[in-house]
Amino acid sequence: MSNGASRPIEAGANESMTKGAAKPQRQRRGRRARHAAIASEQGPRAPYINRQIAAIDILTEEGLSVIEANADTILREIGMEFRGDPELLDILKDAGADIKGERARFEPGMARQIILSSAPKSFTQHARNPANSVVIGGSSTVLAPSWGPPFVHDLEGGRRYATIEDFRKLVKIHQMLPHLHHSGGVVCEPVDLPANKRHLDMLYTHMRYSDRAFFGALIGAERAQHSVDMAKILFGEEFVAENCVLYAVSNTNAPLVLDSAMSGALKTYARNNQAVACTPWTLAGAMSPCTVAGTLAQVLAEALATLALLQLINPGAPCLMGSFASTMSMQSGAPTFGTPEAAKMVLASGQLARRLGVPLHTVGTLSASKLPDGQAEQEGTLGLTMAMLAGANFINHATGWLEGGLVTSYEKTIIDADLCGKLASFFEGIDLSAEAQALDAIREVGPGSHFLGSSHTQAHFADAFYTSIASDSNSFEQWQADGGLDAAERANKTWKHLLDTYQDPGLDPAVDEALQAYMAKRKEEKPDADFY
Amino acid sequence: MSNGASRPIEAGANESMTKGAAKPQRQRRGRRARHAAIASEQGPRAPYINRQIAAIDILTEEGLSVIEANADTILREIGMEFRGDPELLDILKDAGADIKGERARFEPGMARQIILSSAPKSFTQHARNPANSVVIGGSSTVLAPSWGPPFVHDLEGGRRYATIEDFRKLVKIHQMLPHLHHSGGVVCEPVDLPANKRHLDMLYTHMRYSDRAFFGALIGAERAQHSVDMAKILFGEEFVAENCVLYAVSNTNAPLVLDSAMSGALKTYARNNQAVACTPWTLAGAMSPCTVAGTLAQVLAEALATLALLQLINPGAPCLMGSFASTMSMQSGAPTFGTPEAAKMVLASGQLARRLGVPLHTVGTLSASKLPDGQAEQEGTLGLTMAMLAGANFINHATGWLEGGLVTSYEKTIIDADLCGKLASFFEGIDLSAEAQALDAIREVGPGSHFLGSSHTQAHFADAFYTSIASDSNSFEQWQADGGLDAAERANKTWKHLLDTYQDPGLDPAVDEALQAYMAKRKEEKPDADFY
Repeated sequence: MSNGASRPIEAGANESMTKGAAKPQRQRRGRRARHAAIASEQGPRAPYINRQIAAIDILTEEGLSVIEANADTILREIGMEFRGDPELLDILKDAGADIKGERARFEPGMARQIILSSAPKSFTQHARNPANSVVIGGSSTVLAPSWGPPFVHDLEGGRRYATIEDFRKLVKIHQMLPHLHHSGGVVCEPVDLPANKRHLDMLYTHMRYSDRAFFGALIGAERAQHSVDMAKILFGEEFVAENCVLYAVSNTNAPLVLDSAMSGALKTYARNNQAVACTPWTLAGAMSPCTVAGTLAQVLAEALATLALLQLINPGAPCLMGSFASTMSMQSGAPTFGTPEAAKMVLASGQLARRLGVPLHTVGTLSASKLPDGQAEQEGTLGLTMAMLAGANFINHATGWLEGGLVTSYEKTIIDADLCGKLASFFEGIDLSAEAQALDAIREVGPGSHFLGSSHTQAHFADAFYTSIASDSNSFEQWQADGGLDAAERANKTWKHLLDTYQDPGLDPAVDEALQAYMAKRKEEKPDADFY
Repeated sequence: MSNGASRPIEAGANESMTKGAAKPQRQRRGRRARHAAIASEQGPRAPYINRQIAAIDILTEEGLSVIEANADTILREIGMEFRGDPELLDILKDAGADIKGERARFEPGMARQIILSSAPKSFTQHARNPANSVVIGGSSTVLAPSWGPPFVHDLEGGRRYATIEDFRKLVKIHQMLPHLHHSGGVVCEPVDLPANKRHLDMLYTHMRYSDRAFFGALIGAERAQHSVDMAKILFGEEFVAENCVLYAVSNTNAPLVLDSAMSGALKTYARNNQAVACTPWTLAGAMSPCTVAGTLAQVLAEALATLALLQLINPGAPCLMGSFASTMSMQSGAPTFGTPEAAKMVLASGQLARRLGVPLHTVGTLSASKLPDGQAEQEGTLGLTMAMLAGANFINHATGWLEGGLVTSYEKTIIDADLCGKLASFFEGIDLSAEAQALDAIREVGPGSHFLGSSHTQAHFADAFYTSIASDSNSFEQWQADGGLDAAERANKTWKHLLDTYQDPGLDPAVDEALQAYMAKRKEEKPDADFY
C-alpha cells in the first residue's frame, strides 16, 4: 500500500518561510471558527475527494478467488430471476444465458466478460454548475446525503412524517454544506404529496435549489423517463444525449431477484447513457447467509448478473457495482448498522469491484439509533470510515440517516457532514513538502520551548488543521458559558444558520418555467394516488 | 496488504451443517441480548486482540526515509535534553553521545542501532490470572481504559472531582467489561487522597479488584520502586525478577526534553525488566510543528533518544515506541482530538515503530467533548479505529476519556467498550471456511425467499454476528416502550448493572495483608502532601 501523493519531497530541505506574510495569532471562539469553516463553502472547494491513501485489502488474492468462484457457481447452478419484463430475458438469452421461466443462469465467467468488455472504469456526472461536476471512479469519492426516509427528526419537532417543505429545507442545507458533493435524491420522502407524482417535485427541488449533481427517480421506467425529460430541460437535449447528468441505484430483491420496477428504471437510464449503481441490498441472516463470505458471494452474483444485463442493454453505459450489505440482530430480528461484519463486507466489496473494473457504490453513516447520539455517531463513523477505506467511489447516505433509514435527522446531517470533512482531509495524505517537514521550525524553537509563536506556526495557523463544523473543543468553562450544549444542540443551531444564510444558486427563469410546465402536464395526466 | 487468516479455504466446498444442533430462533429483546453479551465475560474470551487485518501503510518507503532522516538531523544538530539526572548523561556519553550541559546529541543512526541491537520485538505482560496475561508486539493489540483524569462524569452526578471510591468503581466496571484487556493505571485521579501517597491506593485497588495486568506509577523513581515492591508481593520476588508484570509510560516534555520525574521512573522500571512505553506527547502547533511531517520527525527523534537511553540502562528490557500526537485549534488554542491529522500521525507512527522493531503504544477514544454525545463518539471512533489500523500493540484510553483527558465518563466507558468489541470482531478478518462460504444455504433458499429459517441460519444464529453491548437497534415503538433512552442513558443502566453484578476475582488473604502492611509503612514514612 502506498501513498499516491505526488508532492516533491526532499529530506532536510531548507524551507523558505514567508515570514513577511506571518499574521498574529488571534484567540477566537470555536463557534466563530465553525461558522467561518462553513462559510468557506462559498469559496473554492474540492468537488469530490481524491483519495491519496490506498484502500484496505482485507482479502488475499486467494480469498477473492474463492468469493468469485462461488458467485460463478451461484449464477450457473441457481441463477437469478428477472421478474415482470420478458424483454430482459430475451436480451440475456441472445447473449448466451440459459433461460427457464424468469430464471437466467450464466456460464462461469460470462457475466464478468460482458462487463469487462464494455463497462467504463470511470465517468463524470455533470452538475449544472460545472465546478460541481463529479468524477466517479478511480481514486475519487463522491459523498451524497441521506436517501429515502419517510420521517424527519429535529430537536424541536421530534420525529414526524416528512413533507416537501422538509425536502426543500434539506436540499438547501446540503447545498450549503462544504463537505457534501452531491445533492442526492430522496433526501426525505415528502409524504404530503401524492405518491405517484412526488418524484417530479423532488427532481424540481434539486434542480431549482442546488447546483450540484443529483439522482434520477429509482422506481419504474415511467419515472426514470420523467427524470431524463426534466434533465433535458435543465441541461439541454444534446448535452444529455452525450453526457451523464443523472445517477440512479437499482436494488436487487435479494436473494437473486430483480423486479420490473427496478429493471424498468435501469433499462431507461442505461438506454439514455445515465449512470446506474447495480446494488444488491441485503441484511445478512435474512436476505443472504448469516456469514460475511456467503453474503459476499451472493452480492457479487447479483451484481454480476445485473451489471451484465445493463451492459447488454447499452454497452459502455456508465455503471457501478453497488454493495449495501449489513446485518441483523439474530436475537430480535432488527436490522443493525455500523457493525464489524458490515465493515468487512464493504472492504471486500471494494476489492471485488476493482477486479471487475467498475466503480464501487456503497453507503455511509448508517445507524439504527433513534437519536443523533453517541450510538448514531459510533455506528455512523465506523460505517463511513470503512466505506472510504474500501475505496468506494460513491457513498450514499453519507449524512443524516437514523433509525435504519426511516429517519433523516437535521442535526445528524450536520454532525455527519463534519465527519465527511474530516475524512476528506485525512485522505489528502501526508504533505511531505520541505515546508511541511518544518525542520527549520524545530531548529528555531529548540528543546523545552513552544511552537505557538514560531514563524512557521504564524505562517500556517490559518490552514494548518481541519476546522471542525460540529465539535466544541473549548474549555469546560467556556463551553458552559456558551450554554453547555451537546453536539446535537449545537448542530440544531448550525442547520438553522445554514438555512438562514442559504445562497440561492439561481436558475434561468425560462428553464424554471419549462420545468414547471413539464411537471404540471405530467400531473394532469393521471389522478393522484397514494401508491407508486 | 494481506489477510493473515490461516483457516483452510476451499471454493464451493460442501458444508457439513450440524442440522441436528439447530435451535429454534427466539425473539428476544435487544436489552436482554446486551446483558447476555456482557455476561459472556464470565466465559472464555480472548485476552487481547490478534489482528488478522494488516496495518495501513500511509507513507511510502521514500516518505518514511524522509521522516527518519529528519529525526536523525534533529538528534545530531539540536539533540535532546535530559534534565535533572547527571547519571543519564554519563550513560549516554559512554555510549558515544555528544554531551554539552544537559543536552545530548547523537550521530545519525546511533540511537537506532542501539535499539535494534537489544530491544525485544514482543513480550508478555503477566496478569495474576494467567488467562489474562497479554502479549505486546506483533499482531497483538491490548486495550486499556482511560488514564489520568482528575474529574469523573456520570449522568446523575455530573462533572465532579474524582475520589478513590470512583477509582474503585471504575476498576470493577473495567474488570467486568469483556472488551477491555488491561486494568489500566490512573483510571481517574483520586483527589480525595494525598497527592504524594495515592499511587499506593491505586496500585492496591488494581491488585485487589482486578485480575488483569495493570500499570505501574509513572512519575518519579520512588513511586516506580513502590510499584515494583508491591508487584513483588503480588507475584513473588522471583517471578518479577524474570517477568514483566508492570507497564508504564514515560512521556517526554515535547519538544526534546525528558525530565527527571519521568526518567527516574523509566530507569527504575528498566532496571527491573518492567515495560516502558517511551511516548512523546505532543499537540502539534504548540509542542511540535503545526504539520504532520514535522511532528512525526520530532516524535521519532524523541522516541529514538529515549528508547536508546532505556536500552543502554538495561539492554533487552521490554519497551515500546509511544505516540500521542494530536492537534490544537489554531483559532482558540484548545487541544483537539479525533482529528484527521491525528489519524495520519498514528498510522505513520505505526510504520516507524515497525521499522524500529519495537511495539507501538498509542491512544484510543480521545475526545474534547464535555458529554458522552455524538461528538465524543465521532472523535473517539475515528481515534480508536485509526489506532487499530496503525497496528498499535497497546492502546491507552481505549474507553471513557472526555474533555481532552480531564474527565473519565462512566457512560462513555460503556459506549466505547462496545466499539472495542466491534473492532476486535472486525480484526478477526473474514472467515473463509466452507461453512462460512454458505453455498448450500444459498442453494437451499434460492431466489426470492429468505434465510431466516434456513438450516444454516438456525445453526449459527447464536454467534453469527457481534452482539452490541450499547446499541439499541429495536423498532422506534419498542425503543419508546423501553423508555426512549439515548445511548448515554442506556449506558448509565449498563455500568450500574456491571457494578451490581461485579464478580470479585478474590485475593489470597496473606497477599492482601502484606500489600496493606506495605502501604501502611510507606504512608507512615512521610507527611501527607498536596503535591507530588
